[in-house]
Amino acid sequence: MTHTPFPPPDPSDGPPRVVYVNGAYAPAAEAMVSVFDRGFLFGDGVYEVSSVLEGGLVDNAAHMARLRRSLEALSIPSPGRDAEIEAMQRTLIARNQLVEGVVYLQVSRGVAERSFDWPSAETPPSLIAFTQAKRIIDDPVAQRGLAVACVPDLRWKRRDIKTVNLLPASWAKMQARAAGADDAWMVEADDDGVERVTEGSSNNAYIVTTAGEILTRPRSNAILHGITRRAVLRLVEAEGLQLTERAFTVAEARAAAEAFVTSASTFVTPVTRLDGAPLGDGAPGPITRRLRALYIEMARAEARADARKSAARAAE
Amino acid sequence: MTHTPFPPPDPSDGPPRVVYVNGAYAPAAEAMVSVFDRGFLFGDGVYEVSSVLEGGLVDNAAHMARLRRSLEALSIPSPGRDAEIEAMQRTLIARNQLVEGVVYLQVSRGVAERSFDWPSAETPPSLIAFTQAKRIIDDPVAQRGLAVACVPDLRWKRRDIKTVNLLPASWAKMQARAAGADDAWMVEADDDGVERVTEGSSNNAYIVTTAGEILTRPRSNAILHGITRRAVLRLVEAEGLQLTERAFTVAEARAAAEAFVTSASTFVTPVTRLDGAPLGDGAPGPITRRLRALYIEMARAEARADARKSAARAAE
Repeated sequence: MTHTPFPPPDPSDGPPRVVYVNGAYAPAAEAMVSVFDRGFLFGDGVYEVSSVLEGGLVDNAAHMARLRRSLEALSIPSPGRDAEIEAMQRTLIARNQLVEGVVYLQVSRGVAERSFDWPSAETPPSLIAFTQAKRIIDDPVAQRGLAVACVPDLRWKRRDIKTVNLLPASWAKMQARAAGADDAWMVEADDDGVERVTEGSSNNAYIVTTAGEILTRPRSNAILHGITRRAVLRLVEAEGLQLTERAFTVAEARAAAEAFVTSASTFVTPVTRLDGAPLGDGAPGPITRRLRALYIEMARAEARADARKSAARAAE
Repeated sequence: MTHTPFPPPDPSDGPPRVVYVNGAYAPAAEAMVSVFDRGFLFGDGVYEVSSVLEGGLVDNAAHMARLRRSLEALSIPSPGRDAEIEAMQRTLIARNQLVEGVVYLQVSRGVAERSFDWPSAETPPSLIAFTQAKRIIDDPVAQRGLAVACVPDLRWKRRDIKTVNLLPASWAKMQARAAGADDAWMVEADDDGVERVTEGSSNNAYIVTTAGEILTRPRSNAILHGITRRAVLRLVEAEGLQLTERAFTVAEARAAAEAFVTSASTFVTPVTRLDGAPLGDGAPGPITRRLRALYIEMARAEARADARKSAARAAE
């Protein structure tokens, strides 16, 4: 039978990646968890992805706050104080010489004999984290725009909790890929068969109507409450753009002037094709480009401030 | 911050448990997978639980066939031939001196850089397996019966694929426990608000009406297609019992004469309380007891034949 290869492929050309696992820093190839970890056996864990620009974290306090909400929703014990977790994130950034990319972190309900029952609340949760080097600002996809394909949303009913039960979303993306697209827009039909977009496989979805109105799903159990979504909606407001938080139909998306998605690891990314046809004029739209530029400006300022703060702390 | 404890608690009083991980046998405390295993990061894996009686496997060929179906549905590469996997299961049983209990096995899409995209089909899948000692036949719960509580079924829409995205089912069980029950019966409401039972957190659900009719959900995407379910429905037929495969309502369950659940690790187990009230007369019913006895008889015969076959092979 087959064996699992180590080390996993290294994403960057930098030094061998250092990964955080339950209190220790280890080379990626030695970063292991027990097969009895509930993250592995049940997908019983939650995660966050924080972006890094110029070596600094973007909007990380909001990610920490959402991590707390996910943990509390599922009664997973805390793996440590925010300051401890952030210090670990900064150590990873420094040791991996990460300039631009993401820090991924995952908390699972820890190691226990396999049972659908949760182990006692005294069971220490597992905390693992690693960096991924990635071009976020100069991402070529942001220039040409994403092609998306609509696929049925098969996920569970609490998509507001950021769990690692991600197979349905990952599968949706692969179904979209098989249809020639870059990503999925997951759709749900109402009782009358009208299909509405929930979100992308790992991002929130927006359209801009020909009247210049931005439409996106309101927060509910049906979608993830994106940290980048929140920041972008504030920019929308500050810019005086027209926004309505409501579910939009696939038909509305087909007739839209522009579309885009937001996530912590891709910021604001245009959507220029839908189900094989151009969306709008098939190029990134002006409102999308404006919001991407504004978000990058804000994120860069935050990241620089964060990097300075981190350097000052290291110099103390 | 907290550290993950090793070894995980050992379930039996036997020798230290030996676990199979990607081609090697290791003590449970050293049985590790990469943090980059997609089983850990995405719940991107499938599993099977085969029961063991008197050291022999029960209905294992059917579990292997369902494993193939799950792998194929999700395009996860095969981790090896059935004969190789079964030889590994037998080695685990022998090395752990398992007499009664289960062999758990899990296949995940292997180790890859984290991405919602699936890695290339050449990526070797991970295969891990371990035993759990457990009293199946003389389970005290089978004598008194289970108390179940109805909780909303939050799971995804392809419950026929046996994936490790099990957090929703595990959470359902814990919600039922919080309500004072042993397990959940997950329910879905139709457009008119009528609630119907899908299944238990890790078992298929049945009621017996006062007219002696056995009701259980037909196979669909809404439930797991239980191996034990199939075997029990054959016994139902052989016994000339009245069976209708249709979804039953919570109201019908409240009015039922008997109820039970089936799974590979608990066989046929009576349900004697529903949402805090006795179901039927509050004791295991005669049809349930009859089916449990018949299933045990059949499983024991199978397990003995399997153990003999295995011993003969070992002696070759």
